[in-house]
Amino acid sequence: MEWLNTPAQAPNAAMTAAAHLRQTQLTKPAGALGELEAVAIRLAGLQGREQPRVDNVHISVFAADHGVADEGVSAFPQAVTAQMVHNFLNGGAAINVLAREIGATLEIIDVGVKTPLTHPNLISQRAGNGTANSALDAAMNTAQLSLALQAGADAADRANAAAADLFIAGEMGIANTTAATAIYCALLDVAILDATGPGTGLDRDGMVHKVNVIRRILNQHRSHFDDPLEVLRRLGGFEIAAITGAYIRAAQLGLPVLVDGFISTAAALIAINVQPSVADWLLLSHTSAEPGHFFAIAELQQRPLLDLNLRLGEGSGAAVAVPLLRMACALHNHMATFAEAAVAGKL
Amino acid sequence: MEWLNTPAQAPNAAMTAAAHLRQTQLTKPAGALGELEAVAIRLAGLQGREQPRVDNVHISVFAADHGVADEGVSAFPQAVTAQMVHNFLNGGAAINVLAREIGATLEIIDVGVKTPLTHPNLISQRAGNGTANSALDAAMNTAQLSLALQAGADAADRANAAAADLFIAGEMGIANTTAATAIYCALLDVAILDATGPGTGLDRDGMVHKVNVIRRILNQHRSHFDDPLEVLRRLGGFEIAAITGAYIRAAQLGLPVLVDGFISTAAALIAINVQPSVADWLLLSHTSAEPGHFFAIAELQQRPLLDLNLRLGEGSGAAVAVPLLRMACALHNHMATFAEAAVAGKL
Repeated sequence: MEWLNTPAQAPNAAMTAAAHLRQTQLTKPAGALGELEAVAIRLAGLQGREQPRVDNVHISVFAADHGVADEGVSAFPQAVTAQMVHNFLNGGAAINVLAREIGATLEIIDVGVKTPLTHPNLISQRAGNGTANSALDAAMNTAQLSLALQAGADAADRANAAAADLFIAGEMGIANTTAATAIYCALLDVAILDATGPGTGLDRDGMVHKVNVIRRILNQHRSHFDDPLEVLRRLGGFEIAAITGAYIRAAQLGLPVLVDGFISTAAALIAINVQPSVADWLLLSHTSAEPGHFFAIAELQQRPLLDLNLRLGEGSGAAVAVPLLRMACALHNHMATFAEAAVAGKL
Repeated sequence: MEWLNTPAQAPNAAMTAAAHLRQTQLTKPAGALGELEAVAIRLAGLQGREQPRVDNVHISVFAADHGVADEGVSAFPQAVTAQMVHNFLNGGAAINVLAREIGATLEIIDVGVKTPLTHPNLISQRAGNGTANSALDAAMNTAQLSLALQAGADAADRANAAAADLFIAGEMGIANTTAATAIYCALLDVAILDATGPGTGLDRDGMVHKVNVIRRILNQHRSHFDDPLEVLRRLGGFEIAAITGAYIRAAQLGLPVLVDGFISTAAALIAINVQPSVADWLLLSHTSAEPGHFFAIAELQQRPLLDLNLRLGEGSGAAVAVPLLRMACALHNHMATFAEAAVAGKL
């Protein structure tokens, strides 16, 4: 896992400055396009071009099962992980619809669904038959962690080889809000009760039970919270590790990342704790309805583009934000300047 | 102006119910797509079809000048109104770029720029050579108000004749945040200091001056605030009146409206005060950076889709939100159901 120690590329400061100057010349009051200006300037610096673009979008959805599902922490049965993978492969899930709408490349990677799946369009890079139950033991061993991180890095490599302008990771894994919430609690200064949400739809009793399971997980592994890779290995899961690997590799390659929601942001937290320079490459797409997401957003010191009360995962929230990035680029690249349009400036 | 008294069409309750049922059957946890579910269901009711669509979008941008610009309330000179109309006609403004991105029909209507403009692609339906200064007198007379309202109604009629799925109004008019802010203060229970913002970019001294001018406007016309059409006639401007007419007519035709930002929402406030049934047809696209917008949003009891710190006008914020509506419809119409995908439901 030595590759994790390679720092991210540095954004291109000259292109950031050029893009900033360009924004001041466009026929609008300075700053009137708000976050759309900011994100266009940021993409210019990341892509190293004065005129950024988000034409070619690569979405990798990682699926895996969680041993902690045995504790009854999800509103849905564990079999839904595999069933949803089939739904992805048949084109019926939300991320399929969104990928078609935005013309993105979509790939599905089995990084450890409980029972192996086979399908011609499924990438199989399994780290195990689901993780172990983190309330009892470490979710994975070191070899499994390495495999899952590498599965993510390979996805970023494929995206980069295909000249992607933007990388999105998505996930599917019944019980993964439990794993993610435990990671939030381990890495951030946040109480279990504040970080825990209903996931796919727990009722109040289910929430109380989930909080108690997370408390057991944290007590089981508390002495290892100063090591982010140990947090990842012990709290899981395989898909969160894969996304962590994907984010780190994308940043090393100089490929901008649009982060999805609650689960993906747990991977982002691990990634920036392993390699702080990765943070420059992570754009936040939306604020999840899962309440703990707020604390990670604060840690990442960014304002997500959207706040639509989404809590689906699969990369769906990031996909929904892609048209905003495209419009930000189009405005930046194609609006007339004050000089071109013979429009007077500010008094 | 008797046509203003015709109520809006009633949304189709059966299609709202059918769309709601459909959402519960799609392969995702109930409610996991948040506002995207809500807006798809709402569009189904408004369009009277279980599967709504936002393919054909019609954008009408109304431009006019404001006599109150004489009071020095804008950071830009009044000549910029006409200059920006030329920019619209030459395809260089933000709304042009956005209309191309979303494949919308875009038309520009001169409802009273100070000096008449001619251009083969400009619709000229002028209510005057700019409004009178509302700090001294009524912004327009009754005949002018009628003409401006009709210009808006005609735009909604054109959109409807072209089988538009969605109508967007935009505006351009130097000093129109002053007119709009005065309307907010006249119709809502809000203090001038809370409602007033920097518009296109006033500094602190400019803001203080703008507040004082708005105070003069309100004192001049205060005895007429119980009559929304009198508020519109006295406080102006022509483009706000045109948008008011467009919203009312669109609602009468059963054509959903996506409201832009601060200025357009002033027109929305007038419209719902004239004809409360119009409110059903108004979807809010974004929260403006102009601070007073908050109060109108509260009055309309809706949550805008976006909050990107935009403050440009032209219909730009609404155009930016169109892809969200399209993705909401695509998800609603094209996701597999639990039965189709053989995915288990909630435990």
